[in-house]
Amino acid sequence: MGGKLWGARFSSKPDVMVDRFHASIGFDKRLWREDIESSIVYSRMLAKQGIISDSEAATIIKGTFAFDESLEDIHTHIEDALIRRIGPLGESLYTGRSRNDQIALDTRLYVKNAILELIHLVTELQVTLVELAEKNQDLVMPGYTHLQRAQPVLLAHHLLAYYEMLKRDKERLEESLKRTSVLPLGSAALAGTTFDIDREFLCRELNMESVSSNSMDAVSDRDFVVECIFCTALSMAHLSRLCEELILWSSQEFGFMEISDSFATGSSIMPQKKNPDIPELIRGKTGRVYGHLISLLTMMKGLPLAYNKDMQEDKEALFDTVDTVANSLTILSMLLKEVEFKGENMLKATQQGYLVATDLADYLVRKGMTFRKAHQVVGDIIRMAEAKNKELHQLDVKEMKDFSPLIEEDVYEWLDPRSCVERRNINGGTGPEAVKRALSKAREELQS
Amino acid sequence: MGGKLWGARFSSKPDVMVDRFHASIGFDKRLWREDIESSIVYSRMLAKQGIISDSEAATIIKGTFAFDESLEDIHTHIEDALIRRIGPLGESLYTGRSRNDQIALDTRLYVKNAILELIHLVTELQVTLVELAEKNQDLVMPGYTHLQRAQPVLLAHHLLAYYEMLKRDKERLEESLKRTSVLPLGSAALAGTTFDIDREFLCRELNMESVSSNSMDAVSDRDFVVECIFCTALSMAHLSRLCEELILWSSQEFGFMEISDSFATGSSIMPQKKNPDIPELIRGKTGRVYGHLISLLTMMKGLPLAYNKDMQEDKEALFDTVDTVANSLTILSMLLKEVEFKGENMLKATQQGYLVATDLADYLVRKGMTFRKAHQVVGDIIRMAEAKNKELHQLDVKEMKDFSPLIEEDVYEWLDPRSCVERRNINGGTGPEAVKRALSKAREELQS
Amino acid sequence: MGGKLWGARFSSKPDVMVDRFHASIGFDKRLWREDIESSIVYSRMLAKQGIISDSEAATIIKGTFAFDESLEDIHTHIEDALIRRIGPLGESLYTGRSRNDQIALDTRLYVKNAILELIHLVTELQVTLVELAEKNQDLVMPGYTHLQRAQPVLLAHHLLAYYEMLKRDKERLEESLKRTSVLPLGSAALAGTTFDIDREFLCRELNMESVSSNSMDAVSDRDFVVECIFCTALSMAHLSRLCEELILWSSQEFGFMEISDSFATGSSIMPQKKNPDIPELIRGKTGRVYGHLISLLTMMKGLPLAYNKDMQEDKEALFDTVDTVANSLTILSMLLKEVEFKGENMLKATQQGYLVATDLADYLVRKGMTFRKAHQVVGDIIRMAEAKNKELHQLDVKEMKDFSPLIEEDVYEWLDPRSCVERRNINGGTGPEAVKRALSKAREELQS
Amino acid sequence: MGGKLWGARFSSKPDVMVDRFHASIGFDKRLWREDIESSIVYSRMLAKQGIISDSEAATIIKGTFAFDESLEDIHTHIEDALIRRIGPLGESLYTGRSRNDQIALDTRLYVKNAILELIHLVTELQVTLVELAEKNQDLVMPGYTHLQRAQPVLLAHHLLAYYEMLKRDKERLEESLKRTSVLPLGSAALAGTTFDIDREFLCRELNMESVSSNSMDAVSDRDFVVECIFCTALSMAHLSRLCEELILWSSQEFGFMEISDSFATGSSIMPQKKNPDIPELIRGKTGRVYGHLISLLTMMKGLPLAYNKDMQEDKEALFDTVDTVANSLTILSMLLKEVEFKGENMLKATQQGYLVATDLADYLVRKGMTFRKAHQVVGDIIRMAEAKNKELHQLDVKEMKDFSPLIEEDVYEWLDPRSCVERRNINGGTGPEAVKRALSKAREELQS
Repeated sequence: MGGKLWGARFSSKPDVMVDRFHASIGFDKRLWREDIESSIVYSRMLAKQGIISDSEAATIIKGTFAFDESLEDIHTHIEDALIRRIGPLGESLYTGRSRNDQIALDTRLYVKNAILELIHLVTELQVTLVELAEKNQDLVMPGYTHLQRAQPVLLAHHLLAYYEMLKRDKERLEESLKRTSVLPLGSAALAGTTFDIDREFLCRELNMESVSSNSMDAVSDRDFVVECIFCTALSMAHLSRLCEELILWSSQEFGFMEISDSFATGSSIMPQKKNPDIPELIRGKTGRVYGHLISLLTMMKGLPLAYNKDMQEDKEALFDTVDTVANSLTILSMLLKEVEFKGENMLKATQQGYLVATDLADYLVRKGMTFRKAHQVVGDIIRMAEAKNKELHQLDVKEMKDFSPLIEEDVYEWLDPRSCVERRNINGGTGPEAVKRALSKAREELQS
Repeated sequence: MGGKLWGARFSSKPDVMVDRFHASIGFDKRLWREDIESSIVYSRMLAKQGIISDSEAATIIKGTFAFDESLEDIHTHIEDALIRRIGPLGESLYTGRSRNDQIALDTRLYVKNAILELIHLVTELQVTLVELAEKNQDLVMPGYTHLQRAQPVLLAHHLLAYYEMLKRDKERLEESLKRTSVLPLGSAALAGTTFDIDREFLCRELNMESVSSNSMDAVSDRDFVVECIFCTALSMAHLSRLCEELILWSSQEFGFMEISDSFATGSSIMPQKKNPDIPELIRGKTGRVYGHLISLLTMMKGLPLAYNKDMQEDKEALFDTVDTVANSLTILSMLLKEVEFKGENMLKATQQGYLVATDLADYLVRKGMTFRKAHQVVGDIIRMAEAKNKELHQLDVKEMKDFSPLIEEDVYEWLDPRSCVERRNINGGTGPEAVKRALSKAREELQS
Repeated sequence: MGGKLWGARFSSKPDVMVDRFHASIGFDKRLWREDIESSIVYSRMLAKQGIISDSEAATIIKGTFAFDESLEDIHTHIEDALIRRIGPLGESLYTGRSRNDQIALDTRLYVKNAILELIHLVTELQVTLVELAEKNQDLVMPGYTHLQRAQPVLLAHHLLAYYEMLKRDKERLEESLKRTSVLPLGSAALAGTTFDIDREFLCRELNMESVSSNSMDAVSDRDFVVECIFCTALSMAHLSRLCEELILWSSQEFGFMEISDSFATGSSIMPQKKNPDIPELIRGKTGRVYGHLISLLTMMKGLPLAYNKDMQEDKEALFDTVDTVANSLTILSMLLKEVEFKGENMLKATQQGYLVATDLADYLVRKGMTFRKAHQVVGDIIRMAEAKNKELHQLDVKEMKDFSPLIEEDVYEWLDPRSCVERRNINGGTGPEAVKRALSKAREELQS
Repeated sequence: MGGKLWGARFSSKPDVMVDRFHASIGFDKRLWREDIESSIVYSRMLAKQGIISDSEAATIIKGTFAFDESLEDIHTHIEDALIRRIGPLGESLYTGRSRNDQIALDTRLYVKNAILELIHLVTELQVTLVELAEKNQDLVMPGYTHLQRAQPVLLAHHLLAYYEMLKRDKERLEESLKRTSVLPLGSAALAGTTFDIDREFLCRELNMESVSSNSMDAVSDRDFVVECIFCTALSMAHLSRLCEELILWSSQEFGFMEISDSFATGSSIMPQKKNPDIPELIRGKTGRVYGHLISLLTMMKGLPLAYNKDMQEDKEALFDTVDTVANSLTILSMLLKEVEFKGENMLKATQQGYLVATDLADYLVRKGMTFRKAHQVVGDIIRMAEAKNKELHQLDVKEMKDFSPLIEEDVYEWLDPRSCVERRNINGGTGPEAVKRALSKAREELQS
């Protein structure tokens, strides 16, 4: 079996193979909207400059608009189709433009839209995180380093760490906009057009921020694609960290969280089982976006100026990146909206593992002990507690006093996970007041 | 414009989004053949072991075969479809199997077939190179280091360098077969099945080389996918080098070669122009395969045992890699068959740039001069020649004799590019006899 | 502060900068042993072929051996040093060799030794895993999919999954040996030497497996370096998975394991705290080796034949890869030798989360129920148990009988995690007999 | 031989191995300046806040400054050394700081300085390119697409394309500064310090732009490192393109350029030979920086909050990236300053290959022919010219008139490569006026 069909794959005639290998229509058609938008503006400019007449422009625009209404029928390049519809006049739309600057423009318009969409979706995920933090403002959980419990923190504080990462992601995307929003038209194939086209008009009408400064750079620059993919690769790194935590927290061992049924798969036989498929998939898709980044960097390496056909390879990596990241952001936001945290389990976890050791040392220091001495005393107490298989709050005052007379009844209040948290109201800290301030600041940033 | 449609992309209901995000049917359907093949063998085994009856097996197999005939209709998983057709009996096909070991098996069968196909295509490209070398056995060209002309070599020798690279590519693919051709069935979800299935029977009937030794490894191993992609990534590195040379040789500056019209694009206005689009595209696609390699390595990083949903991400990278490399090999072979070399230009190029300097030193050494002295003398002669804007063969004997009386009339014969080549008949060298031997050896290897 | 020194970095004179940029001595000196070994064999061959006299060879060898004794003094290239010691005769060692084929040889000798060392270290880690599995043969733990508890497995079985991964790693390294162990000498700069050197003699004496077939390939091939790095990159993927598990198992939440004090860092204040630094570092170093792989693949992309200076970049990536992987293997093996598993915690974990649901369905099927029905009944029972906050073994027979009269007292025995494991003695399964067989097989493989 | 030493590598005692594996001192010492700078500011803040006394602060600062004077002696961590010098008071320097926020700060200070240095070096390379363009403003050369001669362009225009790429590189680096220049102190281990430290004071005194908003993010964020490496990876992509062109232009085939002796290696025997080693090395080093990027992205993938030891791996990749890119920029700038262009060869190259075909069509269009018709006529003329083995300017007017009576004597003037260039004075085009404007604009940008 199998063999036959496998073998057949390559029996096509050379010319068919070549056409198919060249073919970019399969993915270029995703640029139809950008292509039509820019063509309409271009013909208006040609009329304005007197390169074609107003009525010619009207005919072209009408012919071009037609596509918009019958998107489904576009199986071939827009140029050919236009000529079939309105005759040789269609050609004049390509006066002063070449495939090289036109494809650069279409790709730039696509990336610009994609960035705007991605910024929107990152913002939505930020909103979801802020809402989740607000809703769960009281929950205390273990903060980890090295995946070892270290100190109690607020869940809200933990969630806001991701808010910060996403804020940087948005900044990067926003800043990349101005390098994307550049009009290459006028560059022609590589040396600049000889026609008197109005680049500023095109720039304005297509909502671009600037016109390109060098025609050879303009047709051979794909920095904006690579930069867009990098920005999203770093976003995926962030999402992969969050997803790793969602997976850990959903495990029986952690038991901090439950994913809603609609976002987990189970099995008829194990109805209680909830596989965190969505976070796993997003974590896995991180590799996909890293791969696309390397793919484009490799593609650009060592290419002489100006346009080379290699660059056609930018499209699929770009489209798949945008789809992957947009979908990941969207679905993760949906999932988080329905997540349920198990505050009791979290709190219990803060009470095992001596997470308050540092605070006990602080207690002693504030009562006058030197730092080094305090560290040593706490170490000794914990060794004793461990030997007795007790946590610090389970020790008698007497047991502790043996190590230092400074320890008194007020130590229990001091070592309560919640009061540990409350001592950290420094800006950026996990204290409830600090977190409340951070939440207000986030709300403000999200509204602006 | 634009904005609306972009925005609309994510308006779907959560459940639709989730389904779509999970969905692997889009690419899993490429495994239908593997899935059916293994299901048929599996039901035969179940009957043999008495787990189901022979007639039940016959019903299942008949039900399963049906798919084969109506491939186009498969829009859902084979399992569900089978149950719809033959009722609950369909379930028994999944006795002792789980999705985890089944998908591992299907993927292994696919990779095995892909490797065989790729080996076949690499061999075809080798044959093309050997034929091309045989056909152009007389052509002398400059051999380059640092893209500087260094010494004259035979074009056939240059082409055979790629034959050697491809030979290694094939070896790697062949060796990876035995690690791919491993039967995971019997591993069930992760711990091994409790049913008395006959793994050896399945192995034999599915033409696998061995059965897996550890069920947890078996369901979470994707080494064979990563290894396959690596093997092809290295092939693409080789193809990118060859394509770089085809692009250089097709340039006006080198002028060593012409690509046939059917493999180059031109323009109506510049009918003489032939863009080496195919070699450029293949060079560009190198990045794509490197990207897939990184994608999968990243995906596997740090995954705990056993199966994790992240692994679903292996499919698209795998399929796209196999398609890309198979198509690149095929079309490059087609292109090379129709390439035309310009022997005269090549020869002329060997006569500019003092490519025979090393040979002149050898000449002096053989006439008794020490190595160091010979080097120095040749250096002096070339400096003089350069100053006179002459090549070595354009100098008078007298002019050279001034530097060493050892130089006589026979030096011209010695410095002829062809005789330089002919002195290098050591095994592996560029001498015509050595190349002839290499060609015979290649022919032998290709026949075995 | 700071600024001044930063600025000063680039104040050196051009020639110093250029020299330093070129300089490969910093890492080439790591090849001194390979360089000397091959030089000695080469001079013996030159004498054998009558290209130099026996006494000349003796002088050269004596001069060369000297380096070996004063390794610390080598601050310059071996060639120059030799000439300083034994005069112009030193040059003759370079008759028929060039820097291009010599550096290719040295690198091949280095990689060959590195592969042998790595195979040795992988084997040591396998031995450690087998010993650990043998020592802990009785421990039952949860097997996970999606990091959700799925079914009980033996810890030994889990550990042997890594044995299998490492077995494949070794196979790949072993197979790459024959492509590494190829003698390039005789290729000279790129076209082959004109001297009558005996390549077979060199091959034999340097313990290489074959002589290269094409001089242009021989001086521009770095496949063996890339392949070696790939093999180790996949090993690092495996180690990263194991390390992820060690980190999870060492967490308070899992509590399956304790890392010995000598392999963890703590703090004076929290003496109980053990950060799994070593597994974390190894997991982190995975990225480093992936990076080197991409580095070399990128470097080779699109390079025309034959030698290009870009290739000098192979060394540091190679050396750092070998060091990183060799150290990671060594230290992980040391760490595992001293790990202590907490069997009780593991066992307890298998009793929470309905890990035996599948086995309950099997129980019903064996008592005559159809598969589909059994699945449904088990699902219902678990829903009930969950509502009562009980595990299956905590239910009364009566409670279960309500769902099916087939359930009897023997169900408790059947659902014991250990008996679940024991039913999986199929080859490759987690049953104690199967694991015992796997251990014997591993022992055999390790001895051969 | 060899074997013994290889084997010996791993004979060290476990504890030595572990220490060495952990050890970050080898690369952390590169952060000594940042560490000392921040410690001094930190102790001033502690005094200001009354946490220590002024005289204590003075002692600490004096103790700390000492290092600066004996840098060479630092073989251990600054902390320990300080305590050895000034006693337990040294500890207080670490009040309210932890290793986690301190190492984050040091790394941020390093990256900030590195970015400033890189911006400076990119600017220097831009200046060099502008000077080179100004010096060679008259030179006409072929512009290429697909490495095929396409249209005549000015060399200055070609060089300015790289100026534009570097401008974007600088923008990205500049924008990343504000995300780098963030003060993490106050975050302590992960939850925020309980001491009343003045974060704004530290921020101001250390010249940072803002204080971090979330302590958990602050200690586990390495975005600024990854972003810095990405920015330089894209710079390396640009440099690799320029280097590819320098290599091509230095080849005998192109003959457009000569690299100065001090930047090329030759051989005694072939004194005319100039290998473009520097451009080759830079091209090769592109892979190295891509590799570091992937290394860090992989390292960060899936790490749970907050600090994990994996992150220690950021340093070496970062340092090597900064060194590699800084050195590449510096040396490339040095090399370009001494490059000599061969204007005559460039001009000659524009006259072969019908580079003026498009302009001939424009000529006809301007004389009233339709676009489509003009294209067809030019295609026919070129076919004829090719058959006669002539370039367009070598044809008689009569020969051309046969194809269209519109062609007259003025066509020769029109088809002169220089006049082709001169017709492209649109902004961003290759016309001399356009290029002059671009040069002024560049000069302005460089001064601001």
